[in-house]
Amino acid sequence: MEKEMKAVRLHAEWDPKPDFKLGFKDVDGCQTYLGSKVWRNPQIKIEQVPVPKPGPGQVLIQVKACGICGSDVHMAQADDDNYIWYPGLTGFPCTLGHELSGIVVEAAPDAYDKTTNRPFKGGEWVCAEEMLWCGSCKPCADGWPNHCERLDEIGFNVDGAFTDYLVLPDRCLWSLNSLRDRYPDEEVFKLGSMVEPTSVAYNAVVERGGGIRPGDDVVICGGGPVGLAACAVLKRQGAARVILSEPEAARAEIGRRLGADIIINPLEEDLTEKVLEYTNGMGASIYLEATGLPEVVYPAIEQAVWEGRTLNSTIVVVARADAKMPVTGEVLQVRRARIVGAQGHSGHGTFPRVIEAMASGMNMLPMITKEIRLDEVPENIVMLRTDRNECKITCIL
Amino acid sequence: MEKEMKAVRLHAEWDPKPDFKLGFKDVDGCQTYLGSKVWRNPQIKIEQVPVPKPGPGQVLIQVKACGICGSDVHMAQADDDNYIWYPGLTGFPCTLGHELSGIVVEAAPDAYDKTTNRPFKGGEWVCAEEMLWCGSCKPCADGWPNHCERLDEIGFNVDGAFTDYLVLPDRCLWSLNSLRDRYPDEEVFKLGSMVEPTSVAYNAVVERGGGIRPGDDVVICGGGPVGLAACAVLKRQGAARVILSEPEAARAEIGRRLGADIIINPLEEDLTEKVLEYTNGMGASIYLEATGLPEVVYPAIEQAVWEGRTLNSTIVVVARADAKMPVTGEVLQVRRARIVGAQGHSGHGTFPRVIEAMASGMNMLPMITKEIRLDEVPENIVMLRTDRNECKITCIL
Amino acid sequence: MEKEMKAVRLHAEWDPKPDFKLGFKDVDGCQTYLGSKVWRNPQIKIEQVPVPKPGPGQVLIQVKACGICGSDVHMAQADDDNYIWYPGLTGFPCTLGHELSGIVVEAAPDAYDKTTNRPFKGGEWVCAEEMLWCGSCKPCADGWPNHCERLDEIGFNVDGAFTDYLVLPDRCLWSLNSLRDRYPDEEVFKLGSMVEPTSVAYNAVVERGGGIRPGDDVVICGGGPVGLAACAVLKRQGAARVILSEPEAARAEIGRRLGADIIINPLEEDLTEKVLEYTNGMGASIYLEATGLPEVVYPAIEQAVWEGRTLNSTIVVVARADAKMPVTGEVLQVRRARIVGAQGHSGHGTFPRVIEAMASGMNMLPMITKEIRLDEVPENIVMLRTDRNECKITCIL
Amino acid sequence: MEKEMKAVRLHAEWDPKPDFKLGFKDVDGCQTYLGSKVWRNPQIKIEQVPVPKPGPGQVLIQVKACGICGSDVHMAQADDDNYIWYPGLTGFPCTLGHELSGIVVEAAPDAYDKTTNRPFKGGEWVCAEEMLWCGSCKPCADGWPNHCERLDEIGFNVDGAFTDYLVLPDRCLWSLNSLRDRYPDEEVFKLGSMVEPTSVAYNAVVERGGGIRPGDDVVICGGGPVGLAACAVLKRQGAARVILSEPEAARAEIGRRLGADIIINPLEEDLTEKVLEYTNGMGASIYLEATGLPEVVYPAIEQAVWEGRTLNSTIVVVARADAKMPVTGEVLQVRRARIVGAQGHSGHGTFPRVIEAMASGMNMLPMITKEIRLDEVPENIVMLRTDRNECKITCIL
Repeated sequence: MEKEMKAVRLHAEWDPKPDFKLGFKDVDGCQTYLGSKVWRNPQIKIEQVPVPKPGPGQVLIQVKACGICGSDVHMAQADDDNYIWYPGLTGFPCTLGHELSGIVVEAAPDAYDKTTNRPFKGGEWVCAEEMLWCGSCKPCADGWPNHCERLDEIGFNVDGAFTDYLVLPDRCLWSLNSLRDRYPDEEVFKLGSMVEPTSVAYNAVVERGGGIRPGDDVVICGGGPVGLAACAVLKRQGAARVILSEPEAARAEIGRRLGADIIINPLEEDLTEKVLEYTNGMGASIYLEATGLPEVVYPAIEQAVWEGRTLNSTIVVVARADAKMPVTGEVLQVRRARIVGAQGHSGHGTFPRVIEAMASGMNMLPMITKEIRLDEVPENIVMLRTDRNECKITCIL
Repeated sequence: MEKEMKAVRLHAEWDPKPDFKLGFKDVDGCQTYLGSKVWRNPQIKIEQVPVPKPGPGQVLIQVKACGICGSDVHMAQADDDNYIWYPGLTGFPCTLGHELSGIVVEAAPDAYDKTTNRPFKGGEWVCAEEMLWCGSCKPCADGWPNHCERLDEIGFNVDGAFTDYLVLPDRCLWSLNSLRDRYPDEEVFKLGSMVEPTSVAYNAVVERGGGIRPGDDVVICGGGPVGLAACAVLKRQGAARVILSEPEAARAEIGRRLGADIIINPLEEDLTEKVLEYTNGMGASIYLEATGLPEVVYPAIEQAVWEGRTLNSTIVVVARADAKMPVTGEVLQVRRARIVGAQGHSGHGTFPRVIEAMASGMNMLPMITKEIRLDEVPENIVMLRTDRNECKITCIL
Repeated sequence: MEKEMKAVRLHAEWDPKPDFKLGFKDVDGCQTYLGSKVWRNPQIKIEQVPVPKPGPGQVLIQVKACGICGSDVHMAQADDDNYIWYPGLTGFPCTLGHELSGIVVEAAPDAYDKTTNRPFKGGEWVCAEEMLWCGSCKPCADGWPNHCERLDEIGFNVDGAFTDYLVLPDRCLWSLNSLRDRYPDEEVFKLGSMVEPTSVAYNAVVERGGGIRPGDDVVICGGGPVGLAACAVLKRQGAARVILSEPEAARAEIGRRLGADIIINPLEEDLTEKVLEYTNGMGASIYLEATGLPEVVYPAIEQAVWEGRTLNSTIVVVARADAKMPVTGEVLQVRRARIVGAQGHSGHGTFPRVIEAMASGMNMLPMITKEIRLDEVPENIVMLRTDRNECKITCIL
Repeated sequence: MEKEMKAVRLHAEWDPKPDFKLGFKDVDGCQTYLGSKVWRNPQIKIEQVPVPKPGPGQVLIQVKACGICGSDVHMAQADDDNYIWYPGLTGFPCTLGHELSGIVVEAAPDAYDKTTNRPFKGGEWVCAEEMLWCGSCKPCADGWPNHCERLDEIGFNVDGAFTDYLVLPDRCLWSLNSLRDRYPDEEVFKLGSMVEPTSVAYNAVVERGGGIRPGDDVVICGGGPVGLAACAVLKRQGAARVILSEPEAARAEIGRRLGADIIINPLEEDLTEKVLEYTNGMGASIYLEATGLPEVVYPAIEQAVWEGRTLNSTIVVVARADAKMPVTGEVLQVRRARIVGAQGHSGHGTFPRVIEAMASGMNMLPMITKEIRLDEVPENIVMLRTDRNECKITCIL
């Protein structure tokens, strides 16, 4: 008889808006790249589902920890017309949860542990990339898996980790082994669930932003999980001053524990003025836009670039937003500056480096402000629509 | 008795607007960083002036060719309140002309030819950077002379080359020797006068834009001297398709002679659509904004980046303009794209490489559409306020 | 009834030397990473074999052209103990041939054309990477497919292209479509078979060597196929002077047709001295070691770096050789130089760029000095053990 | 009457060996680029000399601290023929000492503080680059001041800092202001004297070696001042494991205090084996050769690169040595590795970043193992010919 397990699953109705057309990766009734144009009346349910079995190249993982992400909230949240907020790739019903760690239970014979280049034997402690890049399309072949043209995503159109077991392809798994020397077991799994969001920040500032050199100053706008993780990553890379702009005191305090040297409250202080004051008129090497309000934040960043004497600043835009940024080319010219966009976390050696950085002391646990059980996931996803106090809520299994 | 010579000099009256304050490099009555806020009633005159003498580290050059630049036009052009158009560093009266080539006549004993690392002996054929970077400030010490904090500029606040002789520091001179094998003498001097504007384009697309790899496609918006030179440089760097967007047929034709494979008339064709059509839906690796109308051009570029499948595109903004560009961060994120600003031409091995590229066949002479004598410089500077037919007008001495 | 076809296949006996141990990827009796330690008494045979069928993600290709590579020669050549010369990954019997072009005949429904990101329909003209990188191991995940830890190779341990049909995974195929506007059909297939060796050169000088900027000088040591292709690639990238060091006049002449400006005969001339003479004492930006005799060539390159005034030179070692190079650290210090190794051709956008460079005029046909039929492949592989006149011998099907 | 001061000065006799010829920068009887070929019978003397006066662009500095460098020892040390050991640029008699910090006493009106871009007023606390790059030669113009073709060097051919006052050009000075918030005054000057040697390490691993990403492992061979400083810099840049290979226990202990996580004793342990053990078979991202015995150390590094699975390793050679390294190109190919040489400390924003890194906690004081007075400098320079216990001996003034 088939084994069963509980899973937090999202259901919604396929009801495309009039202007929607099936796209390349869309499957009628099942899957779309434009979630908010199609899915209506989202409902989170805890259901009994069969424990899956690993196919070729796949691995069965027992989940040990899984964090709630903002996109989980937006998938389950309806707008005034009852369409879901989340605009991206989605295929429902789907088990949610993609910030996961766990233990390998069973593996196909051709499923390999990248860390050892040996087949999985079972018992390995791992975390997972959320992006199931195909490894065959032009971006993947060229080395840009974050821009895979045939992407699947765990917890969005492939069953995720708010459950006991899930099946994943070997290529998205990374060993947590090196964390075990420094941290007790339960912390290893919690840290493991933090690797994905930390890698988003690492990809943004180190891979896309080009990183810094020891002694540089940086400005992080926005103390959400990505901004906070960026504080830790850039402090680790040798920032002299990590300046975090964040109005919420609780968030700012987490930033401080993770590496922020200076906090600016942008509702009470002038960001440009304070950045210039703290940096002795120089400004910063990296500015990270992680607020989602680029139309508000960009002008202040640009002014700091303009008035500061630092050359070669990079403005990294990592938060997703529709709004236009009013960019003055002359500022980029006079200060030799640039603007880059960042998305994803895969490739470029990011996951293994984040794990090694954690293993050598970059402790991301301060980000986890609440631990819950599987049953509590739905209510916490709903609660996060309005809550601003919690940072990362993590389900422990 | 002191030797004299004729020089095309710009005079204007020091009459600062009310909001003007003397800045760091400004000298009351003489020099400012904000020309259009200070100088009134510009007048170009041909005057007799003494032949200068080289001081320590300096070289006396007999001018052989000097091109007219748009900034010459804007320095000599008054707005409705009779203030000059040109907004930058200026110190009047000043002999105009900075796109120059000539022959070394006399040199201080400590004035060295960078090409040979030997003292100048006289007789060397040279061209000059227009930017007299100081070599001592923080940007210069760090390797960014285009952002020198104590800059002087030939033909703006230091006497320039619309005359028979000028004195320049050795550090701004580059030998034209390697051109002499391929080109007749008179062409060497004309090409020499083209090194400066070509270097502005080279700095924009190769140094700041990061260049391309052979087989990439590029889009150049604007067929002014910088845009046209960029066509030649990028074709030289192996562009598969150089796409030039330029409405004027005569400019487009020069672009074609310099290396453009495809011309788009942006007044009659949709830039985005045509770029995607010519590149089989891929878009380009570099987009150069060289029109000065970024608010018009940027949205079309962004749309091509968004719809094209090319990753890692670089949008280089080289034309100076006040207007804001409405930038969508999501486009930079999804396409792994970036925006950079470019200014200047100095440093990074740019001048010597431009000369060697010319010496091995990158012939920029099609850009010179008119040759004039010194006496004709003033009227041609005036004529260029309205003329759109001429590309580069070059004074031959 | 199963369809059959003729194939040029290599047989050899599994007879490991005493010191051989089965390694990670080795399969007893079938496949090894250390060919010359295992395989004895190689024999090339023309045999009847079944036409293969594409499995999931695979494509059936009708071969139109396939070049003979030096490794084909070394796999079929025995040393004094009758072991094969070729030291690398091999699994016999195996159909030889990996420099191929052809037409898609049939494709699995999930086999995609990277160029269009659409499923193959049949009829597409394509070429193939020889390296079947796995897309899942750590190097592949990090973006370094040329260093795949679970590599297969066409014509080495996977059946190759000296036959009528072969089956390949979609991920290794690249469309030749863009060549069809410029070249007649039969030339498209010949050029298609040249994409792989040209990509080895492109990977070496552009990806690994960092490329050049227009106006730089380069030195290519060795006029084998990789060295010659590098002449074309670097001329395309804007080299002012491509200097080719090659003693054989016929090879040198091909180099000239492909882009070499200057030929040095290293048996009659002093390489260092001539390089310095031709570059006015500067030396070159890239030195490519493509002779396989680094112990002879490196000291001459190092001397040119030492005596030349060029900084930041890159010495790229692409030819495989056991011999040690005597490297003087001080030369790398004083000239800010570096040495890099290059292997492979996959990833980094290399294949599609090589195709686009050919499509826009980089014509590699001069490298093909002889065209043969399938029946003639074995005798030509044998002939190439001693022949030094032919450059690339290509089988036309 | 002229003010006088005591100075530690080196005298030697101009007695060129037979094969010596005056070179480009040599001045007969006074100065040479090849010290060990010319200077005989070196003698260190403490003499009375006039306090110098600053000329144009110059600054008079009161010395507060100055470290003894190995080159000070080698300049004052004679070989069996009584020629000095030091092989480089030298002009005697010359006041020694180039690792200096001090206070600006007087400045020419055109001498600027790079940190503020304002004229020096007097009273500024500063340190100095040792290299007086000219700012005008081709390497300086291109942005490579460490390879200046018209270099002068403080304490080698220009009077140095083992005295009360010295005159220096403004361009080589960097403010120590930012250190004053964190450290007591006397430590600021000691740290200031450490900026130069730390910058040599920073230039080697960050600028030339390309640095690391947080989570990478590194191997430092040699616990001299440069190797030890590299431990601190790379730990600061986020190294997971800094592995220091150094046989002397005292040096190793300093390394540990500066950031080394693991010590290997290369006289008792196998470097390759231990590196692979500590890195779980991966090897390191950067290997720094800082021993001066590359012929011994390189083979062990190469073996670690070969056997480790890390790709893209960089081997940085910073110690000066004549010996050849036996380099196997295949290792660089298979592991995508490279070798670079590093010299100097100027440019690239290195000095100001080292100061900011110190100001934010990178404390280099453990390197200073002995503090002395000016009178004691000569005997300590002599003592260091044989002593292996002291790391940095610093003269406090």
